[in-house]
Amino acid sequence: MSTMRAVQVVGYHKNLEMTEVPIPEVQGPLDVIVKIGGAGVCRTDLHILEGQWAEKSGVTLPYTIGHENAGWVHAVGSAVTNVSEGDKVILHPLVTCGLCRACRSGDDVHCETSDFPGIDTNGGYADYLRTNARTVVKIDDSLEPSAVAALADAGLTAYHAAAKAARRLTPRDKCVVIGAGGLGHIGIQVLEALSPAELIVIDRNADAVKLALTLGADHAVVADGSQVEQVMELTGGFGAEVVLDFVGENGSTAQGLAMTRRAGDYHVIGYGENVDVPTIDLVSAEKNIVGNLVGSYNDLCDLMSLAARGAVNLHTQTYALDDFQTAIDDLDNGRVRGRAILVP
Amino acid sequence: MSTMRAVQVVGYHKNLEMTEVPIPEVQGPLDVIVKIGGAGVCRTDLHILEGQWAEKSGVTLPYTIGHENAGWVHAVGSAVTNVSEGDKVILHPLVTCGLCRACRSGDDVHCETSDFPGIDTNGGYADYLRTNARTVVKIDDSLEPSAVAALADAGLTAYHAAAKAARRLTPRDKCVVIGAGGLGHIGIQVLEALSPAELIVIDRNADAVKLALTLGADHAVVADGSQVEQVMELTGGFGAEVVLDFVGENGSTAQGLAMTRRAGDYHVIGYGENVDVPTIDLVSAEKNIVGNLVGSYNDLCDLMSLAARGAVNLHTQTYALDDFQTAIDDLDNGRVRGRAILVP
Amino acid sequence: MSTMRAVQVVGYHKNLEMTEVPIPEVQGPLDVIVKIGGAGVCRTDLHILEGQWAEKSGVTLPYTIGHENAGWVHAVGSAVTNVSEGDKVILHPLVTCGLCRACRSGDDVHCETSDFPGIDTNGGYADYLRTNARTVVKIDDSLEPSAVAALADAGLTAYHAAAKAARRLTPRDKCVVIGAGGLGHIGIQVLEALSPAELIVIDRNADAVKLALTLGADHAVVADGSQVEQVMELTGGFGAEVVLDFVGENGSTAQGLAMTRRAGDYHVIGYGENVDVPTIDLVSAEKNIVGNLVGSYNDLCDLMSLAARGAVNLHTQTYALDDFQTAIDDLDNGRVRGRAILVP
Amino acid sequence: MSTMRAVQVVGYHKNLEMTEVPIPEVQGPLDVIVKIGGAGVCRTDLHILEGQWAEKSGVTLPYTIGHENAGWVHAVGSAVTNVSEGDKVILHPLVTCGLCRACRSGDDVHCETSDFPGIDTNGGYADYLRTNARTVVKIDDSLEPSAVAALADAGLTAYHAAAKAARRLTPRDKCVVIGAGGLGHIGIQVLEALSPAELIVIDRNADAVKLALTLGADHAVVADGSQVEQVMELTGGFGAEVVLDFVGENGSTAQGLAMTRRAGDYHVIGYGENVDVPTIDLVSAEKNIVGNLVGSYNDLCDLMSLAARGAVNLHTQTYALDDFQTAIDDLDNGRVRGRAILVP
Repeated sequence: MSTMRAVQVVGYHKNLEMTEVPIPEVQGPLDVIVKIGGAGVCRTDLHILEGQWAEKSGVTLPYTIGHENAGWVHAVGSAVTNVSEGDKVILHPLVTCGLCRACRSGDDVHCETSDFPGIDTNGGYADYLRTNARTVVKIDDSLEPSAVAALADAGLTAYHAAAKAARRLTPRDKCVVIGAGGLGHIGIQVLEALSPAELIVIDRNADAVKLALTLGADHAVVADGSQVEQVMELTGGFGAEVVLDFVGENGSTAQGLAMTRRAGDYHVIGYGENVDVPTIDLVSAEKNIVGNLVGSYNDLCDLMSLAARGAVNLHTQTYALDDFQTAIDDLDNGRVRGRAILVP
Repeated sequence: MSTMRAVQVVGYHKNLEMTEVPIPEVQGPLDVIVKIGGAGVCRTDLHILEGQWAEKSGVTLPYTIGHENAGWVHAVGSAVTNVSEGDKVILHPLVTCGLCRACRSGDDVHCETSDFPGIDTNGGYADYLRTNARTVVKIDDSLEPSAVAALADAGLTAYHAAAKAARRLTPRDKCVVIGAGGLGHIGIQVLEALSPAELIVIDRNADAVKLALTLGADHAVVADGSQVEQVMELTGGFGAEVVLDFVGENGSTAQGLAMTRRAGDYHVIGYGENVDVPTIDLVSAEKNIVGNLVGSYNDLCDLMSLAARGAVNLHTQTYALDDFQTAIDDLDNGRVRGRAILVP
Repeated sequence: MSTMRAVQVVGYHKNLEMTEVPIPEVQGPLDVIVKIGGAGVCRTDLHILEGQWAEKSGVTLPYTIGHENAGWVHAVGSAVTNVSEGDKVILHPLVTCGLCRACRSGDDVHCETSDFPGIDTNGGYADYLRTNARTVVKIDDSLEPSAVAALADAGLTAYHAAAKAARRLTPRDKCVVIGAGGLGHIGIQVLEALSPAELIVIDRNADAVKLALTLGADHAVVADGSQVEQVMELTGGFGAEVVLDFVGENGSTAQGLAMTRRAGDYHVIGYGENVDVPTIDLVSAEKNIVGNLVGSYNDLCDLMSLAARGAVNLHTQTYALDDFQTAIDDLDNGRVRGRAILVP
Repeated sequence: MSTMRAVQVVGYHKNLEMTEVPIPEVQGPLDVIVKIGGAGVCRTDLHILEGQWAEKSGVTLPYTIGHENAGWVHAVGSAVTNVSEGDKVILHPLVTCGLCRACRSGDDVHCETSDFPGIDTNGGYADYLRTNARTVVKIDDSLEPSAVAALADAGLTAYHAAAKAARRLTPRDKCVVIGAGGLGHIGIQVLEALSPAELIVIDRNADAVKLALTLGADHAVVADGSQVEQVMELTGGFGAEVVLDFVGENGSTAQGLAMTRRAGDYHVIGYGENVDVPTIDLVSAEKNIVGNLVGSYNDLCDLMSLAARGAVNLHTQTYALDDFQTAIDDLDNGRVRGRAILVP
């Protein structure tokens, strides 16, 4: 068999279409062909279909969508030394150059010339995907590609922010997580594993904060308008040393900064609204506003290490690749619990 | 003689008045009485007279103004071990408790219960000042109190931001200083001493940037509306790893963020306008916005070490204490070159 | 009642003696009088009686022994703001000056002029102890002074090393603890709370390593001569990123360095033998040898935070103060499980 | 012309021999062929000829010697994006894999599978050298390959240690450099550029310390047996926060540790003798012993940035490639001032 199934974007404001395309082959010495075991269906995929990424990505249609991928190594180029055929792997979302200053510093997400499969080149809603040696992370025998695929992007973003935040957290510190949804859910588990700080979780959804308590949160706050006051009370009137905002809209930025202690860090992960703050407030309280992008290759390796020991779990709902439209529709209509995963 | 001269705030929107008051005495074991050798005249003093600090400070009138002070130790309490009578000293602007978590961590500017002489208790426009052992820093024999007094607050703020910024700067990095006035002037000298980065200085005033070049700046940019473009060109189109904004108004915050490289730090020191930035920009470029308050006691010790070896210099214009009104008027009318200093 | 019981060193190579002495009183404004609730009996106390500390401490006999103390605040000086009468407290072992560079940097154990109660001044084998505001840490309502007293010195040393080591540990790292006795036991619990690394514990005693597994260790290695090989096998032949050596004798230093990975950290906490290593080995593998003293005041606050939430536990065996000789004898004869505590 | 000159090791305890070999060609997509502009003659080359590296390197004779190389890019493989034909470059001494954890973290000198041209594969005593894209650093137009070649290994080692040490140095700190020879000479210049600390340089040679003063050292100490006392006097009896030992033999390790302040760092760069220190000394003074290997690719980029602005200079003595034996003999007989460089 030399062809495979691929679900492609054929036009904006149109449905995805499944088609037969050639199975990708090794072209360069660092190429890796991965047999897909699971591809996450993400809200970004809906935005791509709405055309929101068309200009930014500059991708030529048709192309194969899907940027959260895991599977098995199918073939490798001559210079690949880190994986072999048959290895179970998860894929870092960016294919980076390895030679620019950012790549040479372990900060590969700021690579000067990276590709983003599923966004600006062929992705993982397919039987096979071509990537390179710099994206593949071997995963533990105990993990299934379909179970971890969604950690490749959403989970990795949460890991990155939580791990960066954890570096300054000590046992006496308080850490607030705003938003206990998909990313926040992972963030809480990572903070529980990496940090001794007291964890306060805020969400509009009472069930979500209840779940957070079972994942390691010490305090659950329902966002009913009094959340700033509740955090101030839980922190002796000082605010929290670190606040991670997985929401970034509907007023969460002002609230997040208000609950950040003097000399504390307010991390922006979710986005939507503007941060709008008087410089005098930043100066007089010496607060930091910290931007957070997706994690590095090393972050993904670390996250997989936590996943292997059961410290990070994600609820998934799997769909056969042929049922891609159902998965898209379910996501669009709020019928997915956890993350939707396509399994070829 | 048991009385001394003191220049006091007797009412808002009124002139300062000189009066005779008792020389302060040692009351507690950590008290230090300092004979003033120089007291900086700061724009904040003008704002105090306009009543801008009345509510915030809660000070009871009349009281002695002056928050940038240096001189000689006149008397010490029984538990003072770090200075002796006759020592030349500069005074940290905050009298801190020494017992709260911030003080115990060397982060004394975030002390939970500090006093601020000259703002909320008696300051240094006088012959003598009572402070405590935690504020006094011995200065080198080669330094004169009147020459360094203005480093106690304005200079210390610049030092703190520059030293914090320098921690991440390497020889290949670019660092932008926005504003080459009083604080920026010190910041440039500190960066030159502490950091190997390439230094780009921006100011509206062509003379100020020319002076900056003599202090260690590598590139001078006149802020004529094209400053962002000029910085992008000087940084290969990437922006600078670190930007220190000593202005904080008239659009400098948006410009400063625009010239900050991906994963870079934008430091807020000057203030006036709001930082107003889309969360998506902070996330996609992973930038940090870093607030900066005045420096710690340790920062002041470090700054005095640089001053002692001539690495940091400040132009000053001295006035006799009795001529306090002339100094105030000169400052208010833009007739002071560098900093005005009252000398008793 | 104005006198109290105190157990004193009256001569070297002599038994301790209980005597009646005046209850200490507040003399300076930062003084704190603590009613002792528990005083740890430490192997160092045996060494003091053997005269090993006589020259080093320069203490004048007789004096009251006991350097691991906790209790209740009985009286405070006029300048004490961090505790009040009746507060439950644990005491940092060093009474530090608060004014030297080390103290101003939060690194108070390197204070230039500290006292060490129980070693060079009166300690806690007594009803009351005079200390100052800089040593007292308020403890949680749920903790009893007699249960935590031994964390004041032995536990604090373990905390300090483990917390310093944890700063570089990530989920993929391996951390070795050599010695699962008193200090190692605490170190394992601290690492479990602060670090996501995989934990390998080595001890000669098979029961000790079994216990370590219940405290959070991932691998237990009995030191039977093959411990280096076992660690190399558990670390894929590379060695561990961090090794904490709570033994420091009988060959543990060479073994510890041998199991440290390239660019890794070997921490010395226990002592006895020399570290003797070719410079070429340090250079070619770029290893670090890290000395560790007792923790700072902040470390003690952090440790008490962990203790309050049950993350650090210590087995103790209590004796009435009057039975001090039994406690000493039991310790000397290996009859104490965990730590012996005198309770007045 | 398809052949070139190459100076090869043809046997241990034999002279090097020049021979004609094929010019290396691009074989893999990341290969880079460099036309040599300068190759440093290093004491290690003498040791190779004595057979000291035979077993360790496992190299098959004959092979081309020379591990400090700079020149011009002659040809590049298809995947090379960081340099183009004609670029002036210096070569990092190690050819690393780019895929292991160390490489992905920017810590490429700890690569799990690196080659070392001139040691275990063909080096730079030749007209051309084959390397790969991961070793080449573009240098400034103002720099000549023959002038900087010796910075590729010896200079890079000094840079790495000095830059690592500088991270903790503040204006009040003291830093000691033991040994003002080849490496120390570079280390002093790097410290002067990167650190505000007071610099104390020690050497047995009075001329060497005099030269050090012109390079930025603040104090010169001739090692006449009183060097520890002299440093203690210059540091107020405390010792220096950081000591860099470029000697590592003849007692320098014990002296270096003795002049290191409590909580300070003693860096080992030179090697020869053992570090032999009681664990109690490391514990009671909480000192660190820090191993230092050659610098990373990023370090080399940073060093070239300093060289481009004239902040780091190296005295060199050039020889025509055909005169290789004279260069070797001069080095062996102490007739080289600075570094000997072969120029094809």
